[in-house]
Amino acid sequence: MPLQHKDLISIRDLSPDEITLILDTAVSMKEVSTRDIKKVPTLRGKTVINLFFEPSTRTRTSFEIAGKRLSADVVNISASTSSVVKGETLEDTGRNLQAMNPDLLVMRHANPGAPKMLADLLPTPVLNAGDGAHEHPTQALLDAFTIRERKEQLQGLTVTIVGDITHSRVARSNIYLLQKMGARVIVSGPRTMVPLFIEELGVSFIPDIREAVKEADVIMMLRIQMERQHESLFPSIREYARFFGLNRNVLQKAKRDVLIMHPGPVNRGVEISPDILNTPYTIILDQVTNGVAVRMALMYLYIGR
Amino acid sequence: MPLQHKDLISIRDLSPDEITLILDTAVSMKEVSTRDIKKVPTLRGKTVINLFFEPSTRTRTSFEIAGKRLSADVVNISASTSSVVKGETLEDTGRNLQAMNPDLLVMRHANPGAPKMLADLLPTPVLNAGDGAHEHPTQALLDAFTIRERKEQLQGLTVTIVGDITHSRVARSNIYLLQKMGARVIVSGPRTMVPLFIEELGVSFIPDIREAVKEADVIMMLRIQMERQHESLFPSIREYARFFGLNRNVLQKAKRDVLIMHPGPVNRGVEISPDILNTPYTIILDQVTNGVAVRMALMYLYIGR
Amino acid sequence: MPLQHKDLISIRDLSPDEITLILDTAVSMKEVSTRDIKKVPTLRGKTVINLFFEPSTRTRTSFEIAGKRLSADVVNISASTSSVVKGETLEDTGRNLQAMNPDLLVMRHANPGAPKMLADLLPTPVLNAGDGAHEHPTQALLDAFTIRERKEQLQGLTVTIVGDITHSRVARSNIYLLQKMGARVIVSGPRTMVPLFIEELGVSFIPDIREAVKEADVIMMLRIQMERQHESLFPSIREYARFFGLNRNVLQKAKRDVLIMHPGPVNRGVEISPDILNTPYTIILDQVTNGVAVRMALMYLYIGR
Repeated sequence: MPLQHKDLISIRDLSPDEITLILDTAVSMKEVSTRDIKKVPTLRGKTVINLFFEPSTRTRTSFEIAGKRLSADVVNISASTSSVVKGETLEDTGRNLQAMNPDLLVMRHANPGAPKMLADLLPTPVLNAGDGAHEHPTQALLDAFTIRERKEQLQGLTVTIVGDITHSRVARSNIYLLQKMGARVIVSGPRTMVPLFIEELGVSFIPDIREAVKEADVIMMLRIQMERQHESLFPSIREYARFFGLNRNVLQKAKRDVLIMHPGPVNRGVEISPDILNTPYTIILDQVTNGVAVRMALMYLYIGR
Repeated sequence: MPLQHKDLISIRDLSPDEITLILDTAVSMKEVSTRDIKKVPTLRGKTVINLFFEPSTRTRTSFEIAGKRLSADVVNISASTSSVVKGETLEDTGRNLQAMNPDLLVMRHANPGAPKMLADLLPTPVLNAGDGAHEHPTQALLDAFTIRERKEQLQGLTVTIVGDITHSRVARSNIYLLQKMGARVIVSGPRTMVPLFIEELGVSFIPDIREAVKEADVIMMLRIQMERQHESLFPSIREYARFFGLNRNVLQKAKRDVLIMHPGPVNRGVEISPDILNTPYTIILDQVTNGVAVRMALMYLYIGR
Repeated sequence: MPLQHKDLISIRDLSPDEITLILDTAVSMKEVSTRDIKKVPTLRGKTVINLFFEPSTRTRTSFEIAGKRLSADVVNISASTSSVVKGETLEDTGRNLQAMNPDLLVMRHANPGAPKMLADLLPTPVLNAGDGAHEHPTQALLDAFTIRERKEQLQGLTVTIVGDITHSRVARSNIYLLQKMGARVIVSGPRTMVPLFIEELGVSFIPDIREAVKEADVIMMLRIQMERQHESLFPSIREYARFFGLNRNVLQKAKRDVLIMHPGPVNRGVEISPDILNTPYTIILDQVTNGVAVRMALMYLYIGR
């Protein structure tokens, strides 16, 4: 079964069957990274360009390792400084890269829609590695893989997402994916951080985190972007942590086998209290491991067949 | 036929036969980038160092992709920040890199003559990837390749170069190459941007762009370096665009099959008006594609035989 | 003989036999870099992460080339800017990288003990590429290799180290290594730059450089870190150069076959006067060449067997 779309811009580009195909493919890709020789020749002679307009060591490294384990040639372009592109339009940057015959563009950009714009313009497949507050589909896929690994299926699960829902591309992509796969989504967080009509997405909004986690099979804590937070959304980090941080008191309200996730990097003591980070139900590092596997699967499915 | 010089610092280092050899070699290299597996083992086990003292994503990426498609190990060194070299002299930087046994140094530097200095000092071949306002020989070679691809030969053509001739390494390298291969060169641009005795190079200076393009088979528009332009050379960007930009009015004076080139990145609406950028005679993206091919050819000819 | 420790944090981690094994292994690794095809498949499918929290083009390049010549996949992470890690703790950064299944972490950090902290935390071997003023063990090993190459053995030699002994990780690692291998160490430098109880390390302190070099088989000049020097340690660079720089006058006091070393980059005319830099006994560039060989040997011994 080939994928229907050339690009992965939004989780909405994927059917449930395609999501299942990606997750199934990632299972065998995960095995590659456990071998003594962590490399398969699948993408030999393919050129993967990591085009990052926002700095992100973590995501860039994950894609770079994924590409190299598939034997692709990976070229990193960090365009965070204006001098790099010398005032060129994004369209022209895209056309120029296209002219060098890449096989895949992995793209992160601060502006929602930027990867979509290049995807529509260029014949080369584009994987959205995060575009502003819009989507982060590879994160949602690795989250789904991680949940499925523990809970066997997504269908019928309840997932509670806590934090700044409005500005989170992770939340948006996860809401789309989880609902598509038959899971129920609850969101929690300060009212100032939850879109007014969130229920229209089929999501329940429960302001009190202790209520919101009660039926959860999975709790996803979102990162507070302290470096770019509008201070006016909540009074202080300390108050946020007190009301919306995950600590023992909150966890007591949840199911005994609830899984705790976070897209990272964690602000210890803000979103999650340190004593919870090392429990077996906190599977944040599994997410990182699975990120490489899912990105290998995506690279294979989009350009390796 | 081996190349006569160890290095490529200036187009003057190359004989017409050598230029032809490079362009012919690039034809087969270009084919590699169209394959499903874009990789040949030619430079396996060779170390190519991209030593960029000026930021240039575009040129660095072109060389990096060229090296990787030939299976070389490519190491990027960006020395734009002073901390990187900690006050070391360029000579010592060069000797230190030499001590790591590289096979090729690709070097960009803001100072004219810097690549030549290292080339004279080190046994490793040096390819000049642009040195101040001096030369940019690989650009001239990819331009020549692109023209030849469309016009079959350079001999007998008329090429009009428009812009800041004085400060352009692209102009200088192209003037040398085109004349060497039997083409006629006309330059146009503000008088403040054209060297006083330019005719001594065998070049015609025609200040009015509408006159200058009349006999042209190729029009090369140079980039206005808005980020470092001395403001005093022309009154305003708008006025520059009006008198020396390429637009429909100017193009009406040219031959119907004239080719339009630009080394990129284009300042849309300054050097070239947007409506001209997408016409079939504008072959700016061909230049980018051919840049990879020509650089592969150079790497092969300088270190792969 | 397998190495006893998972990591190389300090020269104290190594027995004399292990040091000899590393140096012997480096002999054959050095040969690889002289071949036409400078590449062996030893580390194919291994992921080496260069994690540099301090900028160091030179050391990073040496490790990168070493890894690539062994066919490893090398991923560079430059974490000098705070935005890169977004306030994450070093421990979390380490755990996250570990989750991507690397085979080796090469780590430089401004804080003494940082590599040790990660080494204790993670199953992946960690090579210390310099941690603050603590240690730089791969530098000491390449220095030892370079001395042994010229003098056949370290046993019985006298090595004089001149400069800022207190703040030098190079000095510390060399003192440990040289004594372990049976060499005698003399230090010289301004009193403000030599630890008070240095003799307790078994080292002689001779303040006058002309006295200190008299019995030396090797003189190691340390770099004055002009970019971060506390000005109060000596009155001026000029005065430092006059009293502790190596020049013809000082060299006349030394043995005729004394070797002159420096970890680089050299401040010409400060630590060493220019006329001495090009003599056959100045083996600074040998150190650079041998750095690649020693790092290849380390990579092989730590993860390639």
